[in-house]
Amino acid sequence: MIDIDDVYRAAARIEGVAHRTPTITSRSLDQTVGAHVYLKAEPLQRTGSFKFRGAFNKIASLSPEEREGGVLAFSSGNHAQAVALAARLLETSATIVMPADAPALKLAATRHYGAEVITYDRYREDREAIGGRIARERGLTLVPPFDDLEVIAGQGTAALELIDDAPGLDVLLAPVSGGGLVAGCGTAVKALCPGVRVIGVEPQAGDDYARSLAAGRRVSIAIPETIADSLRLTSPGELTFAINQSVLDGVLTVSDNELIAAMRFAFERLKLVLEPGGAAALAALLAHRVELAGDTRVCVILSGGNVDPATFSDLLGEPR
Amino acid sequence: MIDIDDVYRAAARIEGVAHRTPTITSRSLDQTVGAHVYLKAEPLQRTGSFKFRGAFNKIASLSPEEREGGVLAFSSGNHAQAVALAARLLETSATIVMPADAPALKLAATRHYGAEVITYDRYREDREAIGGRIARERGLTLVPPFDDLEVIAGQGTAALELIDDAPGLDVLLAPVSGGGLVAGCGTAVKALCPGVRVIGVEPQAGDDYARSLAAGRRVSIAIPETIADSLRLTSPGELTFAINQSVLDGVLTVSDNELIAAMRFAFERLKLVLEPGGAAALAALLAHRVELAGDTRVCVILSGGNVDPATFSDLLGEPR
Repeated sequence: MIDIDDVYRAAARIEGVAHRTPTITSRSLDQTVGAHVYLKAEPLQRTGSFKFRGAFNKIASLSPEEREGGVLAFSSGNHAQAVALAARLLETSATIVMPADAPALKLAATRHYGAEVITYDRYREDREAIGGRIARERGLTLVPPFDDLEVIAGQGTAALELIDDAPGLDVLLAPVSGGGLVAGCGTAVKALCPGVRVIGVEPQAGDDYARSLAAGRRVSIAIPETIADSLRLTSPGELTFAINQSVLDGVLTVSDNELIAAMRFAFERLKLVLEPGGAAALAALLAHRVELAGDTRVCVILSGGNVDPATFSDLLGEPR
Repeated sequence: MIDIDDVYRAAARIEGVAHRTPTITSRSLDQTVGAHVYLKAEPLQRTGSFKFRGAFNKIASLSPEEREGGVLAFSSGNHAQAVALAARLLETSATIVMPADAPALKLAATRHYGAEVITYDRYREDREAIGGRIARERGLTLVPPFDDLEVIAGQGTAALELIDDAPGLDVLLAPVSGGGLVAGCGTAVKALCPGVRVIGVEPQAGDDYARSLAAGRRVSIAIPETIADSLRLTSPGELTFAINQSVLDGVLTVSDNELIAAMRFAFERLKLVLEPGGAAALAALLAHRVELAGDTRVCVILSGGNVDPATFSDLLGEPR
């Protein structure tokens, strides 16, 4: 499907454009969980999440004709912003199909980056049908949120950086929704450090990946009711699932309350803003879901930080 | 007073103990202010602020007898946590005199690091008198929050890192309260890059530094009513003022609303948590107080991130 060379090519394309995000350590976190923890801080990536890596790599790899015609994406938010910015930087136009109830910050940021936003009703309309129709009518090239080899290779560049920053890694924990982040990072990690366990984390209410891996085939669930707006998909991607069947060593689930606890920990102790979905891997670690020895070196991908201050306050239930 | 060699010695002492915090860039911030901006992210320092640098350097430079006897500090919060952790790491005991109305997070964190906390009434009691009495009774060595050459040299280590990360720097902006951070960083910057303008930023309600520089002597003001709990001092330090008279090129002031706007910008766009005082330099930049050309390279020290989520929500006035 993809191999480490695809990830290296993606790394060359995004170099000097994407941020090389810092890997952060916290001794209080190490003490809390009883291991050496390395936090890959993708909220500090451009557009506030890892999604910029894949979106930029995909658009940069289009043919001149495709790029000339403009791109289209559908996304609950982070991919939308990523495609909008990547398109602007690569001097093409972006049309983004977003759920009308996407976080206000994500809608506003996508428009801010210069994209045309078309909203739809997440519970009644089919975004793929809407997106497909508009793409055909306008001659736009689709930039899929995860089920695309160039997108997957782009997301894998995060792993190249963290392998550099966290030598001797034993475990990689990353949120999983469509599965592009773990597929790309898993491919890189298994190629360069085959002994590393790669573990995905998803919301309990949206455990389609855990079910699908257990079933050995892609399982669909109802639209999950979770605070993690970026992890609300109903089934694994086709390409990502095929890759993840070989690179994933397991999938863990976390409750909404565990996501909130991780967001609070990040705010209070790490001074980082995490959106609910971006906190999933940290939540699994803090909830002691991962088997660790004292000398285990575990890298946690903090995948995004796009949350409104008002939503953040509401979620944490702070007294006024 | 101190010179660059003192800062180098401090850097050697804190190496491998303090974090080398990342310098963060944001193109949306660059566009907003019209310059190249480098953000030194001291909220990611151990204990959540730059204060750990100076506290550790001071305690590490004590004689074995002094260190054996234990240390005492008085602080509104960040210095307290810094001394508590540094003392624990250097295997001595810490007694901390803190205002009873210090942020709950800072009180709790100071105790968490193993210090004994003694509270006092900030509006009625004199912390220096209380601290002095306890230090004499118990034979403790005082670790001053800013007016101490080893503390100042320790704070200057932040500048060594940012000079590495932001070559060709034109302007350094940093919050000023007691003045230890700008004194240390200013000493390093003026020695290594003499052309760099060094500018302090303080709350409008607490403009003792601006008044003192204008007067050519240390001026005292009433206890300032500002949300910046870490910048509520009433006059410059004696040693810091003497240094800052030569290294500071100017002092700007910001309103509480400008501090809040900077905290919101950091949350929404940088994904970093800033406490009000920690946002002062960024606030001055966002309020266009600093004269900049498009190619100006300006480094902003984000000095701390110790704010309760509840206080943060209150300050930002988020609807519930």
